[in-house]
Amino acid sequence: MAFVGAPVSVGRLAGGRPDQTAWVGSRIRAPGAAAARRRVVAARRGAPRMDAAAPESSAVPAELMQTGEPFTDKAVNTIRFLAVDAVEKAQSGHPGMPMGMAPTAFALWDRHLRFNPRNPKFINRDRFVLSAGHGSMLIYSLLYLYGFASVSLEDIQQFRQLNSATPGHPESNDTPGVEVTTGPLGQGICNAVGMAIAEAHAAATYNTDEFTIIDNYTYCIMGDGCVMEGMSSEACSLAGHLGLGKLIAIYDDNSISIDGSTDLAMSEDTSDRYRSYGWQVLDVPNGNSDLASIEKAIEEAKACTDKPTLINIVTTIGFGSPNKGNTAASHGSALGEEEVALTRQALNWRYKPFEVPDEVLTHCRQKVETGAALQADWEALFARYAAAEPEKAAAFESAVVEGALPGDWEAKMQAFAADADGMATRKASAGLLQILAAALPNLVGGSADLAPSNLTLIEDSTDFSATDRAGRNIRYGVREHAMAAATNGIIAAGYGLRPYCATFTIFTDYAKAAMRLAALSHLGVLYVTTHDSVGCGEDGPTHQSIEQLATFRAMPNMQVFRPADATETAAAYAVGLHAKTTPTLLVLTRQGTGKLDEGSYDGAKRGGYVLSDNSPDGESPQLLLIATGSEVDVIVGAAKRLRADGLTVRTVSLPCWEVFEAQPAEYKEAVLPPAVGRERRLSVEAAAAFGWSRYADHAVSIEQFGRSGPGEEVLAYFGFTPDAVADRARALVV
Amino acid sequence: MAFVGAPVSVGRLAGGRPDQTAWVGSRIRAPGAAAARRRVVAARRGAPRMDAAAPESSAVPAELMQTGEPFTDKAVNTIRFLAVDAVEKAQSGHPGMPMGMAPTAFALWDRHLRFNPRNPKFINRDRFVLSAGHGSMLIYSLLYLYGFASVSLEDIQQFRQLNSATPGHPESNDTPGVEVTTGPLGQGICNAVGMAIAEAHAAATYNTDEFTIIDNYTYCIMGDGCVMEGMSSEACSLAGHLGLGKLIAIYDDNSISIDGSTDLAMSEDTSDRYRSYGWQVLDVPNGNSDLASIEKAIEEAKACTDKPTLINIVTTIGFGSPNKGNTAASHGSALGEEEVALTRQALNWRYKPFEVPDEVLTHCRQKVETGAALQADWEALFARYAAAEPEKAAAFESAVVEGALPGDWEAKMQAFAADADGMATRKASAGLLQILAAALPNLVGGSADLAPSNLTLIEDSTDFSATDRAGRNIRYGVREHAMAAATNGIIAAGYGLRPYCATFTIFTDYAKAAMRLAALSHLGVLYVTTHDSVGCGEDGPTHQSIEQLATFRAMPNMQVFRPADATETAAAYAVGLHAKTTPTLLVLTRQGTGKLDEGSYDGAKRGGYVLSDNSPDGESPQLLLIATGSEVDVIVGAAKRLRADGLTVRTVSLPCWEVFEAQPAEYKEAVLPPAVGRERRLSVEAAAAFGWSRYADHAVSIEQFGRSGPGEEVLAYFGFTPDAVADRARALVV
Repeated sequence: MAFVGAPVSVGRLAGGRPDQTAWVGSRIRAPGAAAARRRVVAARRGAPRMDAAAPESSAVPAELMQTGEPFTDKAVNTIRFLAVDAVEKAQSGHPGMPMGMAPTAFALWDRHLRFNPRNPKFINRDRFVLSAGHGSMLIYSLLYLYGFASVSLEDIQQFRQLNSATPGHPESNDTPGVEVTTGPLGQGICNAVGMAIAEAHAAATYNTDEFTIIDNYTYCIMGDGCVMEGMSSEACSLAGHLGLGKLIAIYDDNSISIDGSTDLAMSEDTSDRYRSYGWQVLDVPNGNSDLASIEKAIEEAKACTDKPTLINIVTTIGFGSPNKGNTAASHGSALGEEEVALTRQALNWRYKPFEVPDEVLTHCRQKVETGAALQADWEALFARYAAAEPEKAAAFESAVVEGALPGDWEAKMQAFAADADGMATRKASAGLLQILAAALPNLVGGSADLAPSNLTLIEDSTDFSATDRAGRNIRYGVREHAMAAATNGIIAAGYGLRPYCATFTIFTDYAKAAMRLAALSHLGVLYVTTHDSVGCGEDGPTHQSIEQLATFRAMPNMQVFRPADATETAAAYAVGLHAKTTPTLLVLTRQGTGKLDEGSYDGAKRGGYVLSDNSPDGESPQLLLIATGSEVDVIVGAAKRLRADGLTVRTVSLPCWEVFEAQPAEYKEAVLPPAVGRERRLSVEAAAAFGWSRYADHAVSIEQFGRSGPGEEVLAYFGFTPDAVADRARALVV
Repeated sequence: MAFVGAPVSVGRLAGGRPDQTAWVGSRIRAPGAAAARRRVVAARRGAPRMDAAAPESSAVPAELMQTGEPFTDKAVNTIRFLAVDAVEKAQSGHPGMPMGMAPTAFALWDRHLRFNPRNPKFINRDRFVLSAGHGSMLIYSLLYLYGFASVSLEDIQQFRQLNSATPGHPESNDTPGVEVTTGPLGQGICNAVGMAIAEAHAAATYNTDEFTIIDNYTYCIMGDGCVMEGMSSEACSLAGHLGLGKLIAIYDDNSISIDGSTDLAMSEDTSDRYRSYGWQVLDVPNGNSDLASIEKAIEEAKACTDKPTLINIVTTIGFGSPNKGNTAASHGSALGEEEVALTRQALNWRYKPFEVPDEVLTHCRQKVETGAALQADWEALFARYAAAEPEKAAAFESAVVEGALPGDWEAKMQAFAADADGMATRKASAGLLQILAAALPNLVGGSADLAPSNLTLIEDSTDFSATDRAGRNIRYGVREHAMAAATNGIIAAGYGLRPYCATFTIFTDYAKAAMRLAALSHLGVLYVTTHDSVGCGEDGPTHQSIEQLATFRAMPNMQVFRPADATETAAAYAVGLHAKTTPTLLVLTRQGTGKLDEGSYDGAKRGGYVLSDNSPDGESPQLLLIATGSEVDVIVGAAKRLRADGLTVRTVSLPCWEVFEAQPAEYKEAVLPPAVGRERRLSVEAAAAFGWSRYADHAVSIEQFGRSGPGEEVLAYFGFTPDAVADRARALVV
């Protein structure tokens, strides 16, 4: 069926210079193809600068834009015009990318992508990531055409409207069928790398010689922006290293970005770059109408099992728009009524806005049936698997289907913590991780080249690698942003993995955009960060977190845990693991912490609790000292000194504000009694005090960058000693 | 002199497999060199996994480690042992990198780098960036040996001690001679790209056919970590595009990172990758002792004027240490007393800790004289230039020497603002930028592919490009992190440029680590960010800033300005430009803002001011409404409604907290009178309220992620209308 590879005439819409070269679909890898592509690119790149200000008109005969297959043309143009019309109605959005990528998307979804529209979470589906998330109308059109319940034609007409299923950028929470939330460029391809890691690991975990339960590809469409973002370089270098053969990235090489021609800022040879990463690179010189070549490239990509593949598809942004095609004018704005009419004319599209040809819808909706069959076949396979491999099947059910957290790991963590005597919380974390890893085989993770510092290796496992897919330790290299974004992909892929990732607290700065997407997308990632604050010592201010706590406390749906000792660290892990839709940031010390006699697992699980209070029953203390992390020990010492002076003092540990704020009002008031006003409360935290005025008017904090020196000395320099804190507190009651 | 290229035997210290291949210095580009290098790398990479846990001992004869030049050996080993001894004394630091890179550093500093030790700011010096900042003892050793006043031998003995001139990572504030603060990996190479941009621009600005006033190279040493970080990919792709021929990056290819062998996470062909960016790539297979090849490569790099050069130098981390060389054990820890002794033995080093051979110091200190002569020559040149080109010389004196901000641009900005009727603050910014650009020829900047959205093009200039070095508009592509870090380099380079850079407010998330270094390093960068908060509308939550204001308000030495109208935007620019040691983040709207009758330029320059107050003289208002940015207009409307109900209300605009907090207490209390307690104050800002409890107990804020929809609708959805705010406020006085 479909996609005849016979010679056809194709045209570029570039600035009035249609390229009349005839491409033959089957020539994609034949000699001359590369030269042909170079010719196109050269012609396009040699064009006068194209931007919104200076579109050039072009009258390309409609027949030059066709694939040679009337039905295929109709289907492709249906996708194009759903995007054009939805953006036009919203008067907002990005029509150009879907217009250029419609042929590729149709080839991929119609012929290759395995999915079940009526169960977007079908476990053995192929994953599809639209890393170029601004082209959201592309995926909404596909979801509608192929019969996903999440997107109706009405939803498309509500594109970019408040609380619609079709927001400006694809959001996984809002729209089942959207695997990951994209839009911030570069994130999607990194997610896709994580998804391919997860697939390989799940396949190694559950498949047997006889039964292939997990076997799917991860496809990702990315544009020039994704290619330019450094995070994609990180992730794709890693993907090459890991030999993720089932990752297929499709580069929409349209040479236009918001500023205009990509020539303004980019002249690298992207294909060579991906080859340097160890990828297979395939070229499709004419992505506008040569579907046979697109399909052939996808086949080749699927056949290459030891390397990820980049398919470099040359397209024309805004394909079909006579005046705005191949210009930035079609990138991020509605085409305008007149240009929409001209585009209809150019592509010979006789349908009304939002009208979908019956035969196209009928054709696409066959996937509802074939998708159901795909799932039924898999379920039958799984039934045989369950009979033959009951243990593996049970593990699969537990981790993948139920997302269960079985076992007595909480009790074991508490027992471990009870024995831990004033160790660094990163060391406590290391011990706790081993307990968790033993109980939860779906716990995987790694560090951005700080494993010996973060202490995050699972001792009883190996490194996930090109030759060892069962390994649970992922070596991300010095690539924090890709790590965090890949971790989003690992969890979003839906194989039941619970991933953690690790770096120094300060280097969350490199990963913040990806961590925000975890919070926005409700992904329960664990961030294990160590060497927090000035206590990390000699590395100095470049390595000492100051404003990072405020940054993540201010972020919606992110839990920040700064535990004071092993017990609180155990509680942080427990809260983090149970929070399946909220990521958790653990902020741990490099240095040893004091042995905290009053540390409470249950209290920490509530986010905050009273450590001690020497005021008589029924009376309020004169002073309230609140601290987190390594400074809890400092307030314990300060309180001793103050009490020795005859003062009544309450000490409070507040390891997680977000969890504490979610407690009932009576609990919160029992911990922080309104009777002790903020003017008699002192917060003690080795970080910027920003935000603390919610709880206390006085703060021992750090309102500058840190200092290089032995950690204890630097802490003392900034006033984090029991004596200095006691002095500050005394002044509040004078 | 020096560096004889005669055949010598050299050895690798890798796990007991010394490579006995003889390299000839002059063979660097000869046939066989690449093969030799591959052999070394293969031998090293094929080695069993090397990490701290499993060092293998190796007894390499001392003579294999020598360059063939006794004096050179002595100088190189002086650098090595200053690092070894300083780290040993501190019991903290990174000895391995300086031990491996000492030969390269010596070759570069002794033979190529032009500098004046007694004036680290000599304008026509070559710039040297240690992007692998953890190897800080390398640069401290060099600064001491070559006679910089900033680092004495005592300072080296105080390595990593509190308030020393030799902090853990090099800091430009603490140590003159350190061009930029490094440590967070990848930053330095991006700074270097910015410095090379600045040099090219300054040369185009000030040089004439007759007079070459500005002519210098930017050298940068980077390690595996810098190479892996995505930001370096962004910057180096851009550098290739811009053809920055005077940028020379030296890659310390030692194949060891903190986790162990880089094989754990990296198998890309980095040289090919840089070629794909359009760089010249040179290989030095033996960076441990083949100084002639190192020098030859530097010569070749300098000779290539149209492309940046990567010199890939294969070295052994911890060179000379029998048990820890070529292992991660030498990366980030002191070698230990015993191993230090063994290293002395292996390298035949008979000097005591911190002892510097007289002849080495005498040799190096010659640079004090030659550096002074270099500057004297330049000054003589400049005198002739000043006579021949008085206008250019005056411009140079003003911008570069004085850092002046001449002209009546403030008055013109105010006049522009007075005429601006309720326009989007990004549009006001666009107009103001033109005024500034006309007055300040040293203002340069660009956007990360959002110029048409940020509205940040200087209309009366061209694009800075490979063929137009005078252009003031920099097209960064979709590379926010590299943009921010390159901007740090543009200002730090010291040519008097005042750079701005632009993106959406949300995408500061991508650039945060570099923005933090601007704050830490006292670089007065202007960040022009637009499309802030949910007012940007349809792009939805992935594009709507929520916690970004808190993030940057919590950061030390960063000014966050969220102006309400054109007048406040003008004030923000003025404050930002005058703040030469503090970066300023402008947070601007996509959408139009109301015309603010009470907007005050002087008030905004103080960070906050009273808009209006209808309470009788001598009385306090019942309510205080505080807002920033687009919400100021909302509280103006709310106050009207409340006053119509007979309430007394004060409205306050607080565009910049940091500037406001720096005002005298009486001013602050005049704006926010203590008599109106926080319980009767309402903050109104379309962002997380985190931090606002400093000023008000009640907030109209956004405590979740945003929504996709028309901006006005989304703002209304979250309660940002005069009516909704008035309702919230009324409840406070019931």
